[in-house]
Amino acid sequence: MDKMGKLKDIVVMKFGGSSVADADKIRKVADRVIEFTGEGKQVVVTVSAMGDTTDRLIELAGSVSSDPSRREMDMLLSTGEQVSIAMLSLALQEKGRGCVSLTGIQAGIFTDDAYSDAKILNIRPERIFKELKKGNIVVIAGFQGVNSEGDITTLGRGGSDTTAVAIAAALKAEYCEIYTDVDGVYSTDPNIVQKAVKLNALSYNEMLELASSGARVLHLRAVEFAKKHNVVLHVRSSFNKNEGTWVMDEKAIEEKMERPLITGVTSDTNQVKISVFGLADRPGVAADLFGKFAENNINIDLIVQNVSEKGIAAISFTIKNEDLSLARKVLEVLGSESIAVDPDIAKVSIVGAGMQTHPGVASRMFRILADRDINIEMISTSPIRISCVIRKPRVRDAVKALHSGFDIEE
Amino acid sequence: MDKMGKLKDIVVMKFGGSSVADADKIRKVADRVIEFTGEGKQVVVTVSAMGDTTDRLIELAGSVSSDPSRREMDMLLSTGEQVSIAMLSLALQEKGRGCVSLTGIQAGIFTDDAYSDAKILNIRPERIFKELKKGNIVVIAGFQGVNSEGDITTLGRGGSDTTAVAIAAALKAEYCEIYTDVDGVYSTDPNIVQKAVKLNALSYNEMLELASSGARVLHLRAVEFAKKHNVVLHVRSSFNKNEGTWVMDEKAIEEKMERPLITGVTSDTNQVKISVFGLADRPGVAADLFGKFAENNINIDLIVQNVSEKGIAAISFTIKNEDLSLARKVLEVLGSESIAVDPDIAKVSIVGAGMQTHPGVASRMFRILADRDINIEMISTSPIRISCVIRKPRVRDAVKALHSGFDIEE
Repeated sequence: MDKMGKLKDIVVMKFGGSSVADADKIRKVADRVIEFTGEGKQVVVTVSAMGDTTDRLIELAGSVSSDPSRREMDMLLSTGEQVSIAMLSLALQEKGRGCVSLTGIQAGIFTDDAYSDAKILNIRPERIFKELKKGNIVVIAGFQGVNSEGDITTLGRGGSDTTAVAIAAALKAEYCEIYTDVDGVYSTDPNIVQKAVKLNALSYNEMLELASSGARVLHLRAVEFAKKHNVVLHVRSSFNKNEGTWVMDEKAIEEKMERPLITGVTSDTNQVKISVFGLADRPGVAADLFGKFAENNINIDLIVQNVSEKGIAAISFTIKNEDLSLARKVLEVLGSESIAVDPDIAKVSIVGAGMQTHPGVASRMFRILADRDINIEMISTSPIRISCVIRKPRVRDAVKALHSGFDIEE
Repeated sequence: MDKMGKLKDIVVMKFGGSSVADADKIRKVADRVIEFTGEGKQVVVTVSAMGDTTDRLIELAGSVSSDPSRREMDMLLSTGEQVSIAMLSLALQEKGRGCVSLTGIQAGIFTDDAYSDAKILNIRPERIFKELKKGNIVVIAGFQGVNSEGDITTLGRGGSDTTAVAIAAALKAEYCEIYTDVDGVYSTDPNIVQKAVKLNALSYNEMLELASSGARVLHLRAVEFAKKHNVVLHVRSSFNKNEGTWVMDEKAIEEKMERPLITGVTSDTNQVKISVFGLADRPGVAADLFGKFAENNINIDLIVQNVSEKGIAAISFTIKNEDLSLARKVLEVLGSESIAVDPDIAKVSIVGAGMQTHPGVASRMFRILADRDINIEMISTSPIRISCVIRKPRVRDAVKALHSGFDIEE
């Protein structure tokens, strides 16, 4: 707080479970937080559960329940983050800092009723502001909120990212730092391409396409939230002080730098292709099919529909591996004549805001793949992304070829 | 609920940490709860943290903090009970029962601001009633509440007993069952006297005197709460179905049975005697001394004041072992000339509502001890209790002699 009693610039910092896995790491996170307050910022921290706590709690639930109710699982799992916030606050207080921990309820994080996969509806940040005005560092439990009934809800996988972004939006924070185990967002998976480049800046749309097509560094919903509320993100390593990757509005980036044609190459091997034969070739068949899938929360990725000569439709589409058994049940109920399941596929994608103004990117991609004898089985596009389904064993070759072919390497 | 839509008789059941230490024990508690619902009762359960969870969390806090703040400790420790309620609810649901878990906040347990040793101010049971009306078993986290700020507080040692009694009072429950690892309240410690008798019924005052003079089966504050709100308690074993000990209003007991002269014999070896010499013999000296002790939350038990011939006062009193180092500091500040600390003492007490109408109980007690050559160093009495401080090595002899001498044995 300055002399006028106003709040200084607020920064939200988010640390994942591996960053707070033990006492030593928690102390390091505390040091990191204190450095920021030293730069004259007001700091709000969100943390995940320590290390493998969430997995251990899921296992514990399994010891008394074969089909745990989602409400009680949220009651159980939310304790993991509650332990983390108390531990980090104790570590900060040990270093002489005023600090207070807040659960999702206390931080005013209100969600819908979808236990285990809740969406944040709004944040009432009065308590957070009150604590900041006292000069406290505020440590908030990630991943959790409260519904209109007063029950604890959790936000699903990667929910702590979403908490951090939502808090940053509610506080009108200067930006939101997401600490992770890599230096930032890379042009592709460095495990596949050694010359992968750390990206300095990305637009929200590029980050969304990268996240949804295979990059794992940020949770999709968190990026959507950041885009909607124009929260500047800084993805960086919790192990060093290197500048990471900034994710922000397209225009803000354009003012700063020349944009490359293609920003990143991603791959996703966690997909399976299903072909359904023998559906009547009449309007609404696909709508019925995918409507049922949507009801069962099965996300369809790529779709291709062919009409055979006999007027019988064949539809092929890809879904996540883990949805396969549920999808089989749905298809059985729909009475499809026969289905073919192909688990041996992968999806490779190129993402870049630059392709909107440069035609010919798709044909260049297809050419690069053809030159390596990589057959394209399905294609889907968005204004800033092109994805191809190929044989799984070729996915590393494809990523390497595209990364080098589009001159992303330094 | 009966056909009129009214609630049936409500029973509150409380299970301690050892009763819910693992999955197997949690399933057994679930069976026990279900038996009660089978008897046409509406059941509310309160539970403590599983097994040694609380100790492990205290240890965890110690790994980052040398002097943990009480607020953050309450944030941390309250997760233990939250895990328990989720686990018991999952176990009950697995057995097909409608069940909902509630944290202290959700159950409407409002306390004062004394983190780690909070007192329940009032309970707003709307949510509990709502869930009971739906036909749910309600599982409530013991030991925790919420203050006016919305912060989590804990009730201190034995707090889960207090939660159970307070909930029973708020719901106007028929009675409150406290499950423990013994069959009920005994006339004395069965480890000392083999012929110790399980008591069928006790008045609140007798239970208070027993609890405050060494019996460990029920927490003092819980009994005080029960007395104030006239909550009938049933202390019984979680390992068998034997009738336990009922604790209720004196009149309710008198209507039921002939009362013995002496109900129980207790001992307390966790005391130390301090003698302070060289205080001026003027009015207010003792008040100053014990005022300072009260400020420092040191409870004085027995007190004896002697005036020496020179007009210099010597005061002797007993306190708990763990308060000794703090007491030394207080006495130093007060400038007492010299003090003597005697750790080799014990307190033995007899308790019984019957002694109010039977004079001569004290002299009979002193005679029994004298016959065994047990010297009495300090004496204190209440209308239904007489306590003597003796040498610690004689405490087992004293308990045996009194238990047999007052014909408590069967």
